[in-house]
Amino acid sequence: MLTSAAMAIITLTTDFGMRDGYVGAMKGVLARRAERTTVIDIAHDIPPGDVAHAAWVVATSAREFPYGTIHVVVVDPGVGGARRGVIISAGRQWYVGPDNGVFAYVTDKQYDAWIIDSQQLVQGASRTFHGRDVFAPVAASIAAGVDPASWGALTKLAGALPWGPRPEREGRVLHIDRYGNLITDLPPAEAGAQVTIAGHTLSIMTTYEDVAPGELLAYIGSAKTIEIAVRDGRADTRLGVARGERIKPAGPTGPYR
Amino acid sequence: MLTSAAMAIITLTTDFGMRDGYVGAMKGVLARRAERTTVIDIAHDIPPGDVAHAAWVVATSAREFPYGTIHVVVVDPGVGGARRGVIISAGRQWYVGPDNGVFAYVTDKQYDAWIIDSQQLVQGASRTFHGRDVFAPVAASIAAGVDPASWGALTKLAGALPWGPRPEREGRVLHIDRYGNLITDLPPAEAGAQVTIAGHTLSIMTTYEDVAPGELLAYIGSAKTIEIAVRDGRADTRLGVARGERIKPAGPTGPYR
Amino acid sequence: MLTSAAMAIITLTTDFGMRDGYVGAMKGVLARRAERTTVIDIAHDIPPGDVAHAAWVVATSAREFPYGTIHVVVVDPGVGGARRGVIISAGRQWYVGPDNGVFAYVTDKQYDAWIIDSQQLVQGASRTFHGRDVFAPVAASIAAGVDPASWGALTKLAGALPWGPRPEREGRVLHIDRYGNLITDLPPAEAGAQVTIAGHTLSIMTTYEDVAPGELLAYIGSAKTIEIAVRDGRADTRLGVARGERIKPAGPTGPYR
Repeated sequence: MLTSAAMAIITLTTDFGMRDGYVGAMKGVLARRAERTTVIDIAHDIPPGDVAHAAWVVATSAREFPYGTIHVVVVDPGVGGARRGVIISAGRQWYVGPDNGVFAYVTDKQYDAWIIDSQQLVQGASRTFHGRDVFAPVAASIAAGVDPASWGALTKLAGALPWGPRPEREGRVLHIDRYGNLITDLPPAEAGAQVTIAGHTLSIMTTYEDVAPGELLAYIGSAKTIEIAVRDGRADTRLGVARGERIKPAGPTGPYR
Repeated sequence: MLTSAAMAIITLTTDFGMRDGYVGAMKGVLARRAERTTVIDIAHDIPPGDVAHAAWVVATSAREFPYGTIHVVVVDPGVGGARRGVIISAGRQWYVGPDNGVFAYVTDKQYDAWIIDSQQLVQGASRTFHGRDVFAPVAASIAAGVDPASWGALTKLAGALPWGPRPEREGRVLHIDRYGNLITDLPPAEAGAQVTIAGHTLSIMTTYEDVAPGELLAYIGSAKTIEIAVRDGRADTRLGVARGERIKPAGPTGPYR
Repeated sequence: MLTSAAMAIITLTTDFGMRDGYVGAMKGVLARRAERTTVIDIAHDIPPGDVAHAAWVVATSAREFPYGTIHVVVVDPGVGGARRGVIISAGRQWYVGPDNGVFAYVTDKQYDAWIIDSQQLVQGASRTFHGRDVFAPVAASIAAGVDPASWGALTKLAGALPWGPRPEREGRVLHIDRYGNLITDLPPAEAGAQVTIAGHTLSIMTTYEDVAPGELLAYIGSAKTIEIAVRDGRADTRLGVARGERIKPAGPTGPYR
């Protein structure tokens, strides 16, 4: 288990947007309960209730942070219902939030998870704002060095995303970013020199300027997997594809060999 | 009156968005003038000029912060005109911003307010960006322990919102959040078991999962008042209502008893 | 050259938005590599790839910050291609980002600039996310007091904006803000008492309330240049103009004298 540093970091990833008081209320709770902590905004404009989107954002951000960082994630359409709240230790980082799949990409290897027992919740906790009333106080306690086991029993995570493990020699679009770029889970080593997606066969380039403005390209993205983009444009609308779309190797080592 | 802590907190709530340099300029002034202060973003995507929206955001955020926090609010369509700038002490927190109604929900009980005397403004202050040239410097001075009375005379606030005090046995929609949820000021004790709004009679549920996806529900929200939502949808568009809409008890203690 | 303070400030200006993991990844790198630094968000909703927009935001924000602040700017449609990365010292502030024109407004006077030599990049740096893999680590090194010359040779900046120096007795719309206000580079001293833009002749007012709601006005803006607005409305849509539009003096010292 991790030992909390003297000056812990707590990050926030939510679908609250920056137009309501929800982010402010969480930060107020942290300012009161975790005053020696640095609070860092990761993303608040997650599309409302989009657990898979948040899962990707958390995974690609968290791995850059120092060991012992506490990542609070509140994309939680089932708040107050059957889904549990959890504390997770994985990859030498902490995660706090709902067990609804939002931590799927950071717990695909080894992890420990503890249920946040609702019996232990602050008296008068709301049923619809666990970010303020449950997850922020729990994160503050972890920052203070409290044993996560004091919040509840060890558990196996139940939350999952719509797609299972990646099939062999095939990838899926796992994320579509602000620019309309398609981020897949196809590793470059399997992709080879060309890929096919939505009826297009694309050679792997190095960067956007390798094609003319307005043209499609494939390249090794910042997550070290294959990405698809349109230079100075949007690949999602160009190809008319959504998250979950399949991508396949098409080069000398691919199916059309 | 409050005594400022060694490491004060200043929060920012604006309608500046995150695409221009206005938030950055305010943070620059605070970095220069209040270097031992923690600056916390509450919300910057307040709909432009929407004072009532900001008032709700400030009230629901501020009450979670430690005593002595300084909340700077810049939703200020009348900047440079007749409205005054004010410093307020209420509920053991500080507020700095325009006297245009934006502090209505935090000053409904007891408060002290001081005018920010324009004679004392920094030489060369702009007429259109008091966030940078007036409110940030004033907040920095409060953080440094300066007496608010040194900025101007005690005053009674003039700013107000379009609606007055709540009538008996009736509530109003005071805020519509990012999800399209309708937050009212009807207390659960008055609501009883059912409410009516826009021709719909709804039973009070505990959380979203108590109804099927796409269905309307009423519940006790995070502000401890009655809220109306559509599970996995938007109540504002479903009901076609705007802020100010009335809500009434409809249960055994309600009008249809 | 600047000496870095013990507790440096690093600001972030990007077009990453707040819905993906890109801002979080940069903050993670800074939390690891520049832990004694205060990281401040300036703007993340810069329109994607809009270098001129970002240049204005950086210039109007940066001048408010303390000397020695390090401003990281990642609006970088040519990432991984021919454009160079640079470190700049200008106006007693540091800037780190792509040499694509984004620093045009802060380097119009004196500056020193150093190339970020790609040979020195972290092993395995991506070709498409220099914000995380190049600019954040470089900023952290500057915060730690590393000599910028250790990253590469002194250079003259190549990046430029679509418009050159301002012609005499004429201004251009350099920025359109969230409210639809048109910010020009026409100095008040040249404007005189009236200006013409898009066929409208407007007297210089002091603030929005000097005209009726819905009316056009010109005034001296927060950048100390002439701005055009519609009270409680948008000047950009009202006039149907875009960035680059010309504005001319029209008063007693103007062309219609």
